[in-house]
Amino acid sequence: MLSRVDVALVPAEAGAIEADAYVVIDLLRATTTTAVLFAGGLRRLTVVRTPGEALALRRPGQLLFGEVGGLAPPGFDHGNSPVEAAGLDVAGREAVLATTNGTAAICEVAGRGTVYTGSLANLTALQEHVAARHGPVAIVCAGTEGATRFTLEDLAAAGALVRVLAANGVALGDGAALAAACVEQWPGGVEAMVRSAGHAQTLGRLGLGEDISASLRRDSSTAVPVVVEWGEGWAVLEDAAAG
Amino acid sequence: MLSRVDVALVPAEAGAIEADAYVVIDLLRATTTTAVLFAGGLRRLTVVRTPGEALALRRPGQLLFGEVGGLAPPGFDHGNSPVEAAGLDVAGREAVLATTNGTAAICEVAGRGTVYTGSLANLTALQEHVAARHGPVAIVCAGTEGATRFTLEDLAAAGALVRVLAANGVALGDGAALAAACVEQWPGGVEAMVRSAGHAQTLGRLGLGEDISASLRRDSSTAVPVVVEWGEGWAVLEDAAAG
Repeated sequence: MLSRVDVALVPAEAGAIEADAYVVIDLLRATTTTAVLFAGGLRRLTVVRTPGEALALRRPGQLLFGEVGGLAPPGFDHGNSPVEAAGLDVAGREAVLATTNGTAAICEVAGRGTVYTGSLANLTALQEHVAARHGPVAIVCAGTEGATRFTLEDLAAAGALVRVLAANGVALGDGAALAAACVEQWPGGVEAMVRSAGHAQTLGRLGLGEDISASLRRDSSTAVPVVVEWGEGWAVLEDAAAG
Repeated sequence: MLSRVDVALVPAEAGAIEADAYVVIDLLRATTTTAVLFAGGLRRLTVVRTPGEALALRRPGQLLFGEVGGLAPPGFDHGNSPVEAAGLDVAGREAVLATTNGTAAICEVAGRGTVYTGSLANLTALQEHVAARHGPVAIVCAGTEGATRFTLEDLAAAGALVRVLAANGVALGDGAALAAACVEQWPGGVEAMVRSAGHAQTLGRLGLGEDISASLRRDSSTAVPVVVEWGEGWAVLEDAAAG
């Protein structure tokens, strides 16, 4: 039974948190895209830290998703866009995803307990799955600049998850208390927090504003992506909620 | 002229922030005690990470301050208590301070630009000194558990400092925007944030509640402690505002 929720405000903090399960959130956009791809029936997703690793690891038939500086690198099939992902037929397919922050954060945490990816897109599915299976849970904000710096949008999504996870008797660490308080008290709530984040403004300048709106949409996915294999610099996700 | 304020929510984040100056905050209690000691006329303070290092580095005539688990270790002259420090005659003296988080964070940041220590006790003096001398400034929350985990009380003090530093044209990173928003929006403001922190509750259980109240008092010190020498695991502070 869920006993405690902590939030790592940057992935480096996660190394100091003992938990049964870790939920990595990169709201804009890696873990939102991941939730959308599994909602579309994707079977397996290999996440890596760089486009070069993605090109090297890709096997025949696998789709290649990713971004550098927000945009799809040369030779990739698709960007790191939940809007683009929602329009694709990925049922039964496998894919590789390389991003600057979210996939780096997943790789950093992989191997420490059960590792899930979270977003507003799969908030309820994730909450139900995690609350039923784990005692202490840590939510890991992926951040920016190679997963080294804090970002507001990940704290907003973490706060939304803390609020649905927290119930009587569930202890909250300082980061979790902060996340929950922010989404309750911030004028305009989660959406305003996300839109005020530096990274949201960068995406807006790149013409990717629709991805921000898509990332704010709750429960468009019932997927619970979970790391099933990992090594140095890579991890493989499958949907724990798939039949 | 001050151009930008960032906040590192844990010391590990500071490594990714380029700034002219870094202000380390361990509100409960190392950097508050430091501000109080310099207000009393302390001439030099050597900060280290462990009691063993303090005992090894201490030279004749130097006072020994510090804590492990909140209390003064055996063989130390004094704890890490701003209340205790305020009652001592330290004018012209030198001292060594070993704490679990604040001094570890100072040692981690030392050597990256000019490094100050901040607290509510020296908020105005620090703001005036820093704003007049530096372009991009990073505030570093020392945190807890060996300076690896985020704490609310350091964010509260960071937010108070961001608010007095921020003016028209000063850019705020996401962490700085968060800190400022929290102290503006948290019901009960800085004091309520500090008192709700897990570490404040630990100090309360140790009977050190008066240190929390002392740490909330603003501008009892005009000291601007600055790192003037450093090496692996140690740093020496003097008061940049001393005549």
